[in-house]
Amino acid sequence: PRTRDLGIAPGVFKPGKSNAITDVAGVKVGQVTLIDGKDIRTGVTAILPHEGNLFQQKTPAAVFIGNAFGKLAGSTQVEELGNLETPIILTNTLSVGTAVEAVVKWSLTQPGNENVRSVNALVGETNDGGLNDIRGQHVRGPHVVQAIEAAQSGIVEEGCVGAGTGCIAFGWKGGIGTSSRTLPQRYGGYTVGVLVQANFGGVLQVDGLPVGKVLGKHTFAETPPVSPPAPLKPGDGSCMIVVATDAPLDPRNLKRLAARALFGLARTGSSYTNGSGDFAIAFSTNPDLRVAYGEEKIQTQPTLPNDAVSPLFQAALETTEEAVYNALLKATPMQGRDGRKVEALPLEPLRALIEKREQSLAE
Amino acid sequence: PRTRDLGIAPGVFKPGKSNAITDVAGVKVGQVTLIDGKDIRTGVTAILPHEGNLFQQKTPAAVFIGNAFGKLAGSTQVEELGNLETPIILTNTLSVGTAVEAVVKWSLTQPGNENVRSVNALVGETNDGGLNDIRGQHVRGPHVVQAIEAAQSGIVEEGCVGAGTGCIAFGWKGGIGTSSRTLPQRYGGYTVGVLVQANFGGVLQVDGLPVGKVLGKHTFAETPPVSPPAPLKPGDGSCMIVVATDAPLDPRNLKRLAARALFGLARTGSSYTNGSGDFAIAFSTNPDLRVAYGEEKIQTQPTLPNDAVSPLFQAALETTEEAVYNALLKATPMQGRDGRKVEALPLEPLRALIEKREQSLAE
Amino acid sequence: PRTRDLGIAPGVFKPGKSNAITDVAGVKVGQVTLIDGKDIRTGVTAILPHEGNLFQQKTPAAVFIGNAFGKLAGSTQVEELGNLETPIILTNTLSVGTAVEAVVKWSLTQPGNENVRSVNALVGETNDGGLNDIRGQHVRGPHVVQAIEAAQSGIVEEGCVGAGTGCIAFGWKGGIGTSSRTLPQRYGGYTVGVLVQANFGGVLQVDGLPVGKVLGKHTFAETPPVSPPAPLKPGDGSCMIVVATDAPLDPRNLKRLAARALFGLARTGSSYTNGSGDFAIAFSTNPDLRVAYGEEKIQTQPTLPNDAVSPLFQAALETTEEAVYNALLKATPMQGRDGRKVEALPLEPLRALIEKREQSLAE
Amino acid sequence: PRTRDLGIAPGVFKPGKSNAITDVAGVKVGQVTLIDGKDIRTGVTAILPHEGNLFQQKTPAAVFIGNAFGKLAGSTQVEELGNLETPIILTNTLSVGTAVEAVVKWSLTQPGNENVRSVNALVGETNDGGLNDIRGQHVRGPHVVQAIEAAQSGIVEEGCVGAGTGCIAFGWKGGIGTSSRTLPQRYGGYTVGVLVQANFGGVLQVDGLPVGKVLGKHTFAETPPVSPPAPLKPGDGSCMIVVATDAPLDPRNLKRLAARALFGLARTGSSYTNGSGDFAIAFSTNPDLRVAYGEEKIQTQPTLPNDAVSPLFQAALETTEEAVYNALLKATPMQGRDGRKVEALPLEPLRALIEKREQSLAE
Repeated sequence: PRTRDLGIAPGVFKPGKSNAITDVAGVKVGQVTLIDGKDIRTGVTAILPHEGNLFQQKTPAAVFIGNAFGKLAGSTQVEELGNLETPIILTNTLSVGTAVEAVVKWSLTQPGNENVRSVNALVGETNDGGLNDIRGQHVRGPHVVQAIEAAQSGIVEEGCVGAGTGCIAFGWKGGIGTSSRTLPQRYGGYTVGVLVQANFGGVLQVDGLPVGKVLGKHTFAETPPVSPPAPLKPGDGSCMIVVATDAPLDPRNLKRLAARALFGLARTGSSYTNGSGDFAIAFSTNPDLRVAYGEEKIQTQPTLPNDAVSPLFQAALETTEEAVYNALLKATPMQGRDGRKVEALPLEPLRALIEKREQSLAE
Repeated sequence: PRTRDLGIAPGVFKPGKSNAITDVAGVKVGQVTLIDGKDIRTGVTAILPHEGNLFQQKTPAAVFIGNAFGKLAGSTQVEELGNLETPIILTNTLSVGTAVEAVVKWSLTQPGNENVRSVNALVGETNDGGLNDIRGQHVRGPHVVQAIEAAQSGIVEEGCVGAGTGCIAFGWKGGIGTSSRTLPQRYGGYTVGVLVQANFGGVLQVDGLPVGKVLGKHTFAETPPVSPPAPLKPGDGSCMIVVATDAPLDPRNLKRLAARALFGLARTGSSYTNGSGDFAIAFSTNPDLRVAYGEEKIQTQPTLPNDAVSPLFQAALETTEEAVYNALLKATPMQGRDGRKVEALPLEPLRALIEKREQSLAE
Repeated sequence: PRTRDLGIAPGVFKPGKSNAITDVAGVKVGQVTLIDGKDIRTGVTAILPHEGNLFQQKTPAAVFIGNAFGKLAGSTQVEELGNLETPIILTNTLSVGTAVEAVVKWSLTQPGNENVRSVNALVGETNDGGLNDIRGQHVRGPHVVQAIEAAQSGIVEEGCVGAGTGCIAFGWKGGIGTSSRTLPQRYGGYTVGVLVQANFGGVLQVDGLPVGKVLGKHTFAETPPVSPPAPLKPGDGSCMIVVATDAPLDPRNLKRLAARALFGLARTGSSYTNGSGDFAIAFSTNPDLRVAYGEEKIQTQPTLPNDAVSPLFQAALETTEEAVYNALLKATPMQGRDGRKVEALPLEPLRALIEKREQSLAE
Repeated sequence: PRTRDLGIAPGVFKPGKSNAITDVAGVKVGQVTLIDGKDIRTGVTAILPHEGNLFQQKTPAAVFIGNAFGKLAGSTQVEELGNLETPIILTNTLSVGTAVEAVVKWSLTQPGNENVRSVNALVGETNDGGLNDIRGQHVRGPHVVQAIEAAQSGIVEEGCVGAGTGCIAFGWKGGIGTSSRTLPQRYGGYTVGVLVQANFGGVLQVDGLPVGKVLGKHTFAETPPVSPPAPLKPGDGSCMIVVATDAPLDPRNLKRLAARALFGLARTGSSYTNGSGDFAIAFSTNPDLRVAYGEEKIQTQPTLPNDAVSPLFQAALETTEEAVYNALLKATPMQGRDGRKVEALPLEPLRALIEKREQSLAE
C-alpha cells in the first residue's frame, strides 16, 4: 500500500493528484530495473525537469548536502551556476561513472546539441551492495539511456524499482518513493513534489508512530537488523532526494528548499549515520526561470521573495517524509547477492499502531 | 515538568546524570534573566566549554548552519580555525553587538590575557521581540559578564530563563532547554549534551505525538497562534543549539555532529521557516584536543575516526529533540510587551496523548 | 600619490571618474579617524549601498571568504538571504561588537523603521593593534553613527583614515584604498568599484614590479619587517574588501564577483597568511534588484546571466589590486602604541622600478 | 625551457630537487597522451598520493573550489570525510564518467580490496575541445588504468602531455606543469609540490612581467586570441591544481592550503572567468595521518597547528604560479580538431622582458 492507504497523512498540506513528483507539471520519471539471476538487483531512475532540450534550456537548481559520504557527480557545478542541464540520474554507488558517461553521450546526441562540448551530468547514488552484486558494475550505458527515454508523467512506480531495486532502509526493504503537496491558494497554490531513493537507517518512526522501537529493530539495537555490506555499519546506506516545484524560486531559495527536504528525513527516524550519503537536489519548473545556453543578455525573471517561501519549506519537509514511507510500504521482500534476504516492513504491526492511535484520538 | 516526568523518553539512548549539557564534564552554564516592568523580558545564557582560560586553551569547535536568518557572530572564524576561544553567549537579536563587546572586554581582562589583541566572541541569538521590548536593547555588558561568572556545573535552569526568557515556540511559551545522552560502552561510553534556545515554529510533535495537529494550533493553521513580532511570519523565530561532547572529535566531525543536532529539530515539528535562524555549535571537551594560543609545534592528538561517529550522531539527534521538549515543558505563561500574552504548552492534552499511547502499546 | 600618478595602470580596463568605489552611482563612503595621544590610532569607515532606507529597501549582496580568521559579523545572514540591510562598517577587531550595537540602534531610529525588530549589521574589521591601543576599545557607538552620517559620494579619502588609520601592509603603513573600472560598452558599460582596508602581508609586488624582493623586506625574509602585535606572525593582519557594481547581478553572481576581488589580492603579493582575515563583500546598486522589507509578492527582476559576467570578474581583480596600491601609496608614516613606528612605502625605489620598466618597454 | 631556465624564480622559497610535485616523497605521476589523426588531442594524468593501497590507507585531503564551472567528481566526499581513497585523475571534460568508472573498477581489483563495495573516485578535468574532438569521448577506461600504472616518482613530463595534451592557456598552448618548494628549516623544512592542468585565460603575467599586455594578446583584447570551443567565451577553460605536501596537515588546513594554490593563479594573470572551472585538491603524504579503511579506534595523529601554516601557504601560492609558467613554457604548438592551430607562448619577447628587467635591477 501507499502511506495514505493506511489512513495516515503526514503533515498539514494536501497531496497533488498522483501524490507524486510528477504532480509538478512537466516533470517526468523513467526507471529501468535490473533483476537477473541470483545476484543482480539494481537499476536506474531518471528524473527530467522539463520536456524541452534540457541542455539548451537550463533549469534553475540547487543541491543541499546533509552528509557527503556519497558520490553525487555534478553537484558543484549546479551549485556554482545555479542550474541543471541534464536529466537527474540515480543509480548504484559503483555505477555513477558509467551513468555520467552515458548522460554526456546522450546529451551530445540530442537534436540541437551538435556543437555542445561541455555537459554537466548530475548523477546520484545509494549503495545497493547489500543485495546486489555491486562490484559487477552491471548498470551499463544503454540502461541509463533507456531510463531517460522511458520517462513519463503520471503515476511513478515505487518500491523495488529503478535505482531503488536493491535498497535497504531501516533494516527492511527500501527503494523508490514519491509524494507531493499542493499549497492552499493563500500560499500561492504551488506544488512541491519529492522522489527519494531510500537506502538508509536509524530508528524508524512512521508519522510519529514508534515502529522501530516497538519492533526492537533499529540501527542501534544490540542486534541490529540486516544492513548494507561491510564495512558499512548498521544504518549506513544513503538517501538521495529530488525536489521539484513549480514555484518560481531562484537557486538560492531552491537550496533552502532542498535543505528542508533533507531535514524531513529526521521525521522518519533517520540517524544520518556516517556512511549515509544524504543529498537533496531541488529545481523549479517555472519556464520563465530557464536560461538559454550561451545567453548573454539581461534576463528578466520572476522570483518569490524570501518572505513567501516558508509554506514551501513545510511542504518539502512533509513530502520527503511521506515519500520515504511510500518507498518502504511499496517495497517487497527480496533475496539477492550471496543468498542475503531482506524483508519488507511488516504491515500488521504498523496497521495496529495506526488503528490504536485512531481510536485514542477519537475518544 | 521535564520530558521524562511525563513518562516519555525520546530516542534510544540513556540520559546522563542531570540530563543536561552539564553532564559533559567541565561544561558550565550561567544565566541572567531580565524581567522588569511590563516590557522587559529577555536575558543572557553563557556556556563555558572548560574551566581553564578559554582563550589560552582553545577548544575544538564547529558550527553547522541550517538557516542563517540569524546573527551568530564569530561563526566564520570558528569554522576556519576549528576552535572556540570564548564562552558561547546566547541573547536576543538586537543585543548581539553588546554581548560581543562585553565578551571581548571580559576576555581581555582574564589573568594571562594581558597581551591579547584579537578575540573572536561567539554570540548567538533568537528574537524575543514578541514579548520583550527588544528595540530597547536592554541587555547591557555587565549582564553578559554576570552570566559568564554565574556559570556552574550541575542542574541547568530551563524554560523562561536567561536567553530564553522571552522566547516563543510553536505558538506557546518557549525558552531554554537541555538534555544529554551517555552512549553504551560498546560505542565508547561518551556523553553528548545539548542546550537549546527554543524560539521557533512549525507543527509541534512530541516524541511522535501529533500535538500541533490535535490542538489545531500550528504555523500553517488558517488562524495561526501568537508569533514573533511583525513582519516575521507565524513560525518564524529561530533556534540556537549548543552541543557538547567529551568524545575526541576534530572540528570536521564536530561540524557533522552539529548537523545532526540541527536535523533533530525536525523531529519536534520545526518547519525551519524563512525567518527561523537555526544554527548548531558543537565542541569537544577532550583536553588533549585543546591548542594553546600561539602554538606552532606539531600537536599529537587523539581523534575518533569517521567510522566510529554514528552513535554520537544519533545521540545529537535525540538530545536536541528532548531539549526542545524540556524548553516547552518548563516554560511558564508570560505577559510582556504591549500586553501580549503567551501561554505555556497545555499539559493535559499532552498527558492524555501520552497515556493513550501507553495503553495502546501495552495491549 | 595614487597609483596612476606614478604612471602605472594595473589591468586592462579604464577607471571611472574618481577611480573610487563611489563611481558606482549611489554609493557613499563616510569615515571617522581617531588619532589621539600616543596610543589611539583607529577609526571607522562606512559604505552605504544606496541613498534610501537601507533596511526597507534591501540591497542584493554576497560575501566570499578567503580566510575567516576575522570577525565579519552579519556575513552568514547576507549569504542566506542574499541581501544587505545596513551600511557596511569597517573598524578594528575589538570594536566589532560596539559597531554592531551602534548600527542596530541607528537602524532602529531611521524614519520608517519604527516597527523593526530584527537588524543584521554587517561589520568587518582588521587588527590595528600594531599601532593602536586596540585593547582600549576606543571606537564608541557615536563614532560609528558619525561615519554613517558623514557618508558622501565623490572623492574617497585614502591611506591613514577611518578604519585604515592604524593599518600596516607588507610591513609598511597601510590603510584605506579605493579604485574603480568602467567596462567598455561591448561588455555592457558597467562600473565596478572597490574599497579595501589593507592590513596584510606577503611579498609586495606593485603592478608586477618585485618591490618586496628588491627591498628585501617581506613576510618571509629572515628579518621580517614590523608587523601586527604578537602573537600574530609577520604578515598577519587581514584585508577587508568591499565591491560595488551597478551591473544587475543576483547574490549568486555577486558572490562570484566577490571571489575575484579576493583573488586579486594575490597580484599584490598577499600571502593570505593564517592570521590574515580576508573577506570580500559585493553588492549591486541596481534599484530593480532591491526587495522591500516584508515583501511576499513575486518579484520580476533583471539579472545578468552567467555567460556575461567574465568582464566584471576581470574588473574586480584589477580594481582590488589597484585599491591596495592606493592604500599603500596614500598612507603616511605613523607612530603609535608603545612608540612603535611604521614607515610609508618608500616612493623612490618604486619610482625607479617603474621608470626602468618604462624605458625597457619603450626600447 | 622551464621557468628557471629563463633566469626567473617566482616567489621567495627554493624548489625541491626536481622542482616537481614528485619532490614530495611518495608521490607518483603517470600520464597517457592520446594524439591520433587530425582530431584526437587528449589524455590522462594520474597522481598517486602514496605507494600503498590507496583505498585501505586513506590519505588526508581536501578540495578548495574557486569556480565550480567544472566537473570534479568525488569532491564532496573528500570534503566530508577528509580523505582520498583513489588516485587523482585528470582528463577532459567529457571523459570524467569514463574515468570514474575505470578508477572504480581498478580499485575493486587491487589486492586486498576483494570486499570493497564503495569507492569514491576523484576525477577532474579541463575542456580540451578547442583542439580535441572532445565529443568523441576518445579516452577509454584502459587509458586511465595505463596512466595509473605508469605512475612514477622523479621527473614529471610537462606541456602537451597527459590531460594537458589539448589544453590552451592565455590563448597559447597550455598543458601540464609542475613545481615545488622546500621550506627553510626555520619553517620546518617541509616540501610543497603542485601539478596544474593549465587551460585557462586572462591577461598573462610571467613573474610580474606584463606579457599579455605587451603582446596585446589577452582575453579582453578587442580581438581575443584563439580560445576554447564555442560557446565558451575567450578566456574560459579551467585550471585543475593538485597540491601535495609532507607537512602533517589535517583536512581543515589542507583546504586552506588548497585555497592559496587557487589564489596563486591570480599571479599568472588568470581572470577566473565564468567558464573557467578552477579547483585545487590538496593532500598530505604524512603516513601517520592515514586512516585505515573501517577503522573505529581512536587515532593519535600529529598535526601542525594553525599558527605554523603560513609559510606553507606562501609556498602553495608561488609553486602554483611557477607550475603554470612551466606548463606554458614546455608546451609546443599544436594543430588539432578542424585544423585549429594554437601556438606556443613565444619565447623571444619573454626573454627580452626578462633580460631588460635583469639589467635594470642590476643598475
